[in-house]
Amino acid sequence: MFEAAELGRKVAKAEFRRREAGLRLELLELQQALRGADFPVLVLFGGVDGAGKGEIVNLLNAWMDPRWIVTEAFGEPSDEERERPPYWRYWRALAPRGRIGLYLSAWTSPPLLARAYGELDVAAYDEALERIAAFERTLAEDGALIVKFWLHLGREAQKRRFRRLEKDPLTRWRVTERDWRHWRMYDDFVAAAERLIRRTDAPDAPWHVVEGTDLRHAALTVGETLRDAMRRRLETPPTAPSPPPPAPDPGPTVLSRIDLGRRLDKARYRRELARWQGRLAELGREAAVAGVSTVVVFEGWDAAGKGGAIRRLTAALDARRYRVVPVAVPTDEERAHHYLWRFWRHLPRAGRMVIFDRSWYGRVLVERVEGLAPPEAWRRAYGEINDFEEQLVEHGTVLVKLWLHISDEEQLRRFRERAETPHKRWKLTDEDWRNRERRADYERAVHEMVQRTSTTAAPWTLVAAEDKRHARVEVLRTVCGALARRLEG
Amino acid sequence: MFEAAELGRKVAKAEFRRREAGLRLELLELQQALRGADFPVLVLFGGVDGAGKGEIVNLLNAWMDPRWIVTEAFGEPSDEERERPPYWRYWRALAPRGRIGLYLSAWTSPPLLARAYGELDVAAYDEALERIAAFERTLAEDGALIVKFWLHLGREAQKRRFRRLEKDPLTRWRVTERDWRHWRMYDDFVAAAERLIRRTDAPDAPWHVVEGTDLRHAALTVGETLRDAMRRRLETPPTAPSPPPPAPDPGPTVLSRIDLGRRLDKARYRRELARWQGRLAELGREAAVAGVSTVVVFEGWDAAGKGGAIRRLTAALDARRYRVVPVAVPTDEERAHHYLWRFWRHLPRAGRMVIFDRSWYGRVLVERVEGLAPPEAWRRAYGEINDFEEQLVEHGTVLVKLWLHISDEEQLRRFRERAETPHKRWKLTDEDWRNRERRADYERAVHEMVQRTSTTAAPWTLVAAEDKRHARVEVLRTVCGALARRLEG
Repeated sequence: MFEAAELGRKVAKAEFRRREAGLRLELLELQQALRGADFPVLVLFGGVDGAGKGEIVNLLNAWMDPRWIVTEAFGEPSDEERERPPYWRYWRALAPRGRIGLYLSAWTSPPLLARAYGELDVAAYDEALERIAAFERTLAEDGALIVKFWLHLGREAQKRRFRRLEKDPLTRWRVTERDWRHWRMYDDFVAAAERLIRRTDAPDAPWHVVEGTDLRHAALTVGETLRDAMRRRLETPPTAPSPPPPAPDPGPTVLSRIDLGRRLDKARYRRELARWQGRLAELGREAAVAGVSTVVVFEGWDAAGKGGAIRRLTAALDARRYRVVPVAVPTDEERAHHYLWRFWRHLPRAGRMVIFDRSWYGRVLVERVEGLAPPEAWRRAYGEINDFEEQLVEHGTVLVKLWLHISDEEQLRRFRERAETPHKRWKLTDEDWRNRERRADYERAVHEMVQRTSTTAAPWTLVAAEDKRHARVEVLRTVCGALARRLEG
Repeated sequence: MFEAAELGRKVAKAEFRRREAGLRLELLELQQALRGADFPVLVLFGGVDGAGKGEIVNLLNAWMDPRWIVTEAFGEPSDEERERPPYWRYWRALAPRGRIGLYLSAWTSPPLLARAYGELDVAAYDEALERIAAFERTLAEDGALIVKFWLHLGREAQKRRFRRLEKDPLTRWRVTERDWRHWRMYDDFVAAAERLIRRTDAPDAPWHVVEGTDLRHAALTVGETLRDAMRRRLETPPTAPSPPPPAPDPGPTVLSRIDLGRRLDKARYRRELARWQGRLAELGREAAVAGVSTVVVFEGWDAAGKGGAIRRLTAALDARRYRVVPVAVPTDEERAHHYLWRFWRHLPRAGRMVIFDRSWYGRVLVERVEGLAPPEAWRRAYGEINDFEEQLVEHGTVLVKLWLHISDEEQLRRFRERAETPHKRWKLTDEDWRNRERRADYERAVHEMVQRTSTTAAPWTLVAAEDKRHARVEVLRTVCGALARRLEG
């Protein structure tokens, strides 16, 4: 794979100056055009140590306007990063629409290193590579222009590069014992890199292997490739996606199987509430000590009692260790990113709980039904969500997903009650009434959501909420069960 | 001071239930009203260990809707927090407008502990208390409703509380060796607390000392005090501030003393540029190794050459270690906070540099001149800014503030050139032309800014930018000088 990048290509100084001058102007103009566009440009740098990745990133910053560039190099994770799933730091560093992000030693680095060191077997490595591909696919499908460069040096060329750096007192510090150790493992690195490139090369996230023997050649190649990719994208008129075929009527939905007749009388409710709140208080303390984080997702019909259920849950917890995140209209900063970005940013630290009052499932519920997201967007959201949740669970986070279900009639009754009770009136909006008219569409969306995202690792719990008392206890019981399985199982 | 909080006040269970029921409804309604208001409610809890601060915060979360409450308890700082000035974590946790923030072991805790342990002498303690007062004043003047509770227990009452907690197997873990050590230091804590309360009690950030012997009494007192404060504020019509007297004409401004005739010819420029960029590269590496952070502020006339000067600066730096933050319209998340919040959030980690292209000085420049901030807001900004910068410098951050100055005629020349050059046209907006008409007002604002915010710790450098080459070298030299003084001085 790398033979084509060991040809000793060189660019003379004069030619470099000439080509550089034109390229700079073109890049600057494209960067200005990008500022008005609705996608980010994400540029990933990988490659052999000493092949000039850092130098090229610096050059790109010098050629373009650094105000609209985000450059991130990932070293040892901070403790705040370590307490979240590994990709948290990459999500956190994503450039917003209209800007360019340059990434060094980013998401491809840890698996590559682990594979070269033999810490990952082939199967585990392939899984890590599939995660990379899924991450990039998610961003590309959201519109991100992704360009990936692999800076290559042959074994002997790398040795020469290190020797040269070591000779100069100004650059000697850059070559470490670790670099030489890696050089001795050259073949392991190359084998791991080949597999990485093969498995994560995609039409909308292509790798460009660049010969790094001559820095001038490498820099121009990177700059010109980036220029071409940006120009192509900025000049392509957005294609209207073909309308997807309508989904078949699912017939009876999963919701129809929920027994809405389940009730708790007051005395029983008091007993059960006290019992499960006591249990939750205990488990909450254990989770804090063990550093186990929890994410609870509340979805359900308007007026299904999410707020009341959340309060019964939090009443048993220490306010210093949970946070309730109400999900409403995204802020403009959030809108400038992939729709999952706003949820990634709220993930809890170790030992804490975050309760989402509505969540990322808005994409396949309200946004789908109201036509706020195009069909291809909410369709691919199922896979994106499964991948996101898998990362949470793999990290050891307890994930609980609750759908609070009530009948159409009960909802109407509660709406009317709200309209008549002064201190509850604020809860009821015109939009709530409008949503009621779309009940059938929403049922279908809920059905498909459960079908596609209730996985073994992250199952949905459908809660019969016709009776608030029953629902509240059921919610507590579910959260306790999930915590207990993680802490004691 | 605390005698009045050692009277053994108690509330019987039945009375508690009765008063609690009414209070809850009132708090919930006020919380709803607050959601539409344009200020946050910040509630600070201090007090003796074991006096029930945590329990009360939990109760407040149970009484109100936890979705609109931010609860933060500050423990050991994370490494990301340690790399910024101490108040970074508090700014980060501030509730946005319309919400309630509950804070435990927050900004009053570290100085109080340090004083009780004898690590701070009286003078240093007073300085720390002045910082607390300044922080709260800054937030209050921006509209925040601040309510502070001191939960008190007498020496014997605290001992009894610990004993009782220790007896119950369920709460035994809550009493630590540290609690008993602090109990033995009771008098030191009380002395430090008295001074804290006296020095940080202000009309718009008052302390309420609450007897903590009986939790029911304490919780109701806190809840009712908070209710009254919120109600008072929500019912008070905003008073129109009296127009401030116009500032006297400053006569010749500091800008008139800048020698705009300074120039560099091309050859000299090349040499000097190379020399100072080389020096900066070296200092940048040293700063990274030493973990020294740098903040560079660029202000100046439109077309004064900020962008070009920034690029000459960054060209000498490793892109992995700096970030350029262009300051434009605030995002809606930023607008929901104090205007300094958006700058606090961008402060660099250890060893990194952040370059602000325009900055917090917008408040006393464009916002003042264009009438975007009322006079009382931009007037108090001088003090707020000085305090902010003092914290940066105290933390060890290198702070460089640059004003790029050009004459009115040179600006006109550059505007015309921009208008005529296709690839520069995007830089020029109608607003730029409008701003030109206000030159005299801006000069006055710049003069006052320099007068009030050029401090020994954070001086302004006024750069003659009539000649771009001279300005660029001057900028590099200034940044190098500041870095060298910090690293080698």
